Amino acid sequence: MYKINLSEKLSLFSDAWSPKIIAELNGQHVKLARLKGEFVWHSHEHEDELFYVVEGAFRMEFRDRSVELGQGDMIVVPRGVEHRPVAENEACVLLFEPASTVNTGNVVSELTKDHLDRI
Amino acid sequence: MYKINLSEKLSLFSDAWSPKIIAELNGQHVKLARLKGEFVWHSHEHEDELFYVVEGAFRMEFRDRSVELGQGDMIVVPRGVEHRPVAENEACVLLFEPASTVNTGNVVSELTKDHLDRI
Repeated sequence: MYKINLSEKLSLFSDAWSPKIIAELNGQHVKLARLKGEFVWHSHEHEDELFYVVEGAFRMEFRDRSVELGQGDMIVVPRGVEHRPVAENEACVLLFEPASTVNTGNVVSELTKDHLDRI
Repeated sequence: MYKINLSEKLSLFSDAWSPKIIAELNGQHVKLARLKGEFVWHSHEHEDELFYVVEGAFRMEFRDRSVELGQGDMIVVPRGVEHRPVAENEACVLLFEPASTVNTGNVVSELTKDHLDRI
């Protein structure tokens, strides 16, 4: 039961596409991530995923359309839906998702993280 | 798969202590609420509860101490822990908690909401 400040947590890391766990509740993880450039197309078989933009802006691409997101915006990507986040400039996002979620979902790539740090 | 803007959602209501559901995922609700004044002491038997300050500031009181929270801060209140949010001035917060969560937890009061609107 302590205060978690997002700016302070963001100052602790600079690597893109490497989510850090900042809190856990009800089997869900709260993560912070920096997005920069294009991620890989993927989906999560069993997990819905929430993205909330803390700083910057990015585009969530789906196979049939895209959604532009800026600071203060959020989006829920339902399980099974292919998506790809793309950030022209760096974006800092908060993620809410089940603890079981792997960042690249059904795809294994050089961006896949088998272990996430807690900060 | 659409954009949800927090400021826009906040502009849709003004009543304090009346959380509105803005998204749902993995059996969890994402809610927005305005806090003003003192809430009731309560706990949630089965639900951990996350508060994230979008605007303003408030104090989370526990039986043995308090935590002051400002914009950009979050706190997780574990299940079973008695707490009482107090906002001297209005605070706007994002809540992330299981869909089963009742706002006043184990206590029934005039502040208990049996139904939450989706906005």
